[in-house]
Amino acid sequence: MTKTAEQRRADERIVYDAFMAACPTRQVFATIGDKWAGLVVNALAGGALRHGQLRTRIAGASQKMLTQTLRTLERDGLVTRTVTPSVPVRVDYELTPLGRTLVPVLSALKSWSEAHIGQILQARENYDAAAAG
Amino acid sequence: MTKTAEQRRADERIVYDAFMAACPTRQVFATIGDKWAGLVVNALAGGALRHGQLRTRIAGASQKMLTQTLRTLERDGLVTRTVTPSVPVRVDYELTPLGRTLVPVLSALKSWSEAHIGQILQARENYDAAAAG
Repeated sequence: MTKTAEQRRADERIVYDAFMAACPTRQVFATIGDKWAGLVVNALAGGALRHGQLRTRIAGASQKMLTQTLRTLERDGLVTRTVTPSVPVRVDYELTPLGRTLVPVLSALKSWSEAHIGQILQARENYDAAAAG
Repeated sequence: MTKTAEQRRADERIVYDAFMAACPTRQVFATIGDKWAGLVVNALAGGALRHGQLRTRIAGASQKMLTQTLRTLERDGLVTRTVTPSVPVRVDYELTPLGRTLVPVLSALKSWSEAHIGQILQARENYDAAAAG
């Protein structure tokens, strides 16, 4: 009987620590910290959406960028892609239970950005003025 | 009297929304979601550290990557850089009050990654097997 990757890791009792260079957590940290991934997860927090609806919700996302981001999230088990063979074909995206556990984390990141952008833009202005002076 | 950028924005009562393409929040979202920025903020959560201490704490970070990340965080007003003119020169990095408000957000992101990495690696294995089959 072949063990799954998850069973092997459980056997080995690996303790993940993103501070470690070889830790795969760091790669996940990079993926979910990605701007587009964060916006997609936030957009899907309210329920399933079609590709076109996602594009409307996330202004400025190109079709290519959105498709790539959705594929990464699907591969990571965070989003499901459901194809309904209608004419035209309908494709829905929805968060998985695992993906939903990520919503409060990324929602906090989005809220923090929105709440503190004024202070950050002011800090940049001061920094650039000091560097030029 | 010249108004600061922050005062102008307050006057204009701008409501920031990262879902909007032109919103500068999206850029901040990208910066703080950055893998290295997240690791640096998490590393500084316990107090000020010197450049060399940060490099030791964040295994695998190159000197160049760490310097770039610290400069971005300093420009954004999240980290202060203090130079002590000793021999050799001593440079300490510390979170600002604004930077400290980011700790719980990024700490949650790091913890989520560490807690769910097993499920994500398993999902990738399943996805790749299905794609190959």
